[in-house]
Amino acid sequence: MTQTNPLLTTPIEDGFRMPGEFEPHAGCWMLWPERPDVWRENGRPAQQTFIEVATTIAQFEPVWMGVSSASYATARAQLPAPVELIELDYNDAWMRDNGPTFVVNDAGELRGIDWDFNAWGGLYRDWKADDQLASQVLRLRGYGRYKTHLVMEGGAIDVDGQGTLIATEQSLLDPLRNPGRSRDEVEAVLRAYLNVQKVIWIAEGTHEDETKGHIDNLCCFARPGVVALTWTDDENDPQYPISLAAFEQLSREVDACERPLQVVKIHQPTPMHSTAAEAAGVMDFPGTLPRNENERLAGSYINYYVANGGVIVPQFNDRFDTAALETIQSLFPNRKVVGIYAREILLGGGNIHCITQQQPMGGSQK
Amino acid sequence: MTQTNPLLTTPIEDGFRMPGEFEPHAGCWMLWPERPDVWRENGRPAQQTFIEVATTIAQFEPVWMGVSSASYATARAQLPAPVELIELDYNDAWMRDNGPTFVVNDAGELRGIDWDFNAWGGLYRDWKADDQLASQVLRLRGYGRYKTHLVMEGGAIDVDGQGTLIATEQSLLDPLRNPGRSRDEVEAVLRAYLNVQKVIWIAEGTHEDETKGHIDNLCCFARPGVVALTWTDDENDPQYPISLAAFEQLSREVDACERPLQVVKIHQPTPMHSTAAEAAGVMDFPGTLPRNENERLAGSYINYYVANGGVIVPQFNDRFDTAALETIQSLFPNRKVVGIYAREILLGGGNIHCITQQQPMGGSQK
Repeated sequence: MTQTNPLLTTPIEDGFRMPGEFEPHAGCWMLWPERPDVWRENGRPAQQTFIEVATTIAQFEPVWMGVSSASYATARAQLPAPVELIELDYNDAWMRDNGPTFVVNDAGELRGIDWDFNAWGGLYRDWKADDQLASQVLRLRGYGRYKTHLVMEGGAIDVDGQGTLIATEQSLLDPLRNPGRSRDEVEAVLRAYLNVQKVIWIAEGTHEDETKGHIDNLCCFARPGVVALTWTDDENDPQYPISLAAFEQLSREVDACERPLQVVKIHQPTPMHSTAAEAAGVMDFPGTLPRNENERLAGSYINYYVANGGVIVPQFNDRFDTAALETIQSLFPNRKVVGIYAREILLGGGNIHCITQQQPMGGSQK
Repeated sequence: MTQTNPLLTTPIEDGFRMPGEFEPHAGCWMLWPERPDVWRENGRPAQQTFIEVATTIAQFEPVWMGVSSASYATARAQLPAPVELIELDYNDAWMRDNGPTFVVNDAGELRGIDWDFNAWGGLYRDWKADDQLASQVLRLRGYGRYKTHLVMEGGAIDVDGQGTLIATEQSLLDPLRNPGRSRDEVEAVLRAYLNVQKVIWIAEGTHEDETKGHIDNLCCFARPGVVALTWTDDENDPQYPISLAAFEQLSREVDACERPLQVVKIHQPTPMHSTAAEAAGVMDFPGTLPRNENERLAGSYINYYVANGGVIVPQFNDRFDTAALETIQSLFPNRKVVGIYAREILLGGGNIHCITQQQPMGGSQK
């Protein structure tokens, strides 16, 4: 849990920027799911899905997976050899949110940003290890660490790598995360640390998303100038006005390079709810977050991961699954699109994008 | 996982000694069991027994329990408030074996010994966190750390606090633990670090004990001059010759103060074997230690924990349970003897003594 001293500068001062997820990666970070008050049956079903995600990504790029000391042997036994296991200390397995956000410069150097983390506004207790995870990873690998006390998770932002960022006010201005901070104050931190010139603020994220507004379940850049957006044609679904507002706003916007944005709708899966058996499998005690049956799950195909030459897309055995794969394939014509049945990740509160964190290649990809 | 620098001296040079377990404690260390290739059903049944042990000990003295970051919330929710939870990094929950061995001096100071640990001769992989656990604890509490590269677990030794130590050749001279080391070499380390003047070497520990010979399942000092020994009247049980040899040897011995030893037999529980359901509940993959049904379990009432004013004794719903409690009560007339049904701990490979580690009060209790 020891930290190295943080850098005394900001990425923008040092010429570092956050690349788009679609730019080349050195590899992908993940964490082994264990937490028995989040993952039903002490994580066993979720572990099988994480194994499938890791195995698939490993076909495209290196995968480094953190694991607790207690679960090292069983994780090692079940994961294929190319997935590297590293003992790390963490509270839960959402590497997108508790991991470092990597930035690169034109000379090919890589550094990481260590945001403050408070478990999505105190949703789960405790979060001490998660808050120190980015620092652990950066120290382990010897990468420079930028530290800022903005409370933020990696899933709360998406960038095009060319100066544009999208985020929601719901998550970044959440009074349980950054009380008293104005939008301008938060935006100034994003500009300085991610080296962006334009921040597009969306009001809110997907309906019933327990992250309270993560952009990465609502919309993301498929490439500069193109944003994929979760959508529903059902005007009675509470998701409808959320997606409609985002669509209308994004369609009016230009990016940091003054390009208008093309918005590509991807119809969401049919609304899903947790079953009694799924809820009962989660350890539930006073002081832990309860899971009840028949809770609406925030299913979205947008929560995919872009790997080198591949895109890993959640599937739900739903009638919209195929259309989502086809649309995403059209957005990434030079990558292999792979669908993975991912309900077990969704039950934990996120999806494939939330459990992965790309480490970009150093160097400019502009 | 950071270590403080070890001391450059030895306990004997500094006037520190290991007290007997029956001397006053500051408290008791434990660890939360989680490892799914050791504890069936991902530890849930064992956790219930650990909770009962911790709750019972907490009636007599403070209990400090280590827990992984992932399990903090569920452990906290289930443990009574007096049990203090501390996030620690460890592979498995045998605090007797991977924890520090505490030593005290006459001025009331406390320090700890950090032995090398290799998972009972490489029985489980990996053991990196367990090997660093003693150092973690000592650093956390600011206690001085003595480091020696003898490979040893706390369950391999028992002392009377007045200069006498008992151990088995089977465990300390195990070629998978201390290859090439002679008995004299090992004894010299024990003398220097535990400040004992006499080491009584027993040949071997209990039958089918997976620790390969830990003394703490075979016999222990109830007080100076009195040793409790697991026993069987069944001459056909493989345990019989082991207990008989120990009885005969100990009956001939004198301690460091030249007192003859009184040996008190405690009849073992009826031989027990693991069931198919118990074995099936343990995660079993290539590279993890397999658990099979119908394995003989090394049940012994000797594996009790002596607390301030109490003795916590394993019970097995066996016909010898009551006799064991009565004999132990006669050995500790001023303590409350409490039996706890402990088959779930035994299934993991040890018992109540193995999952506890007393932290003595500073100061001489001679």
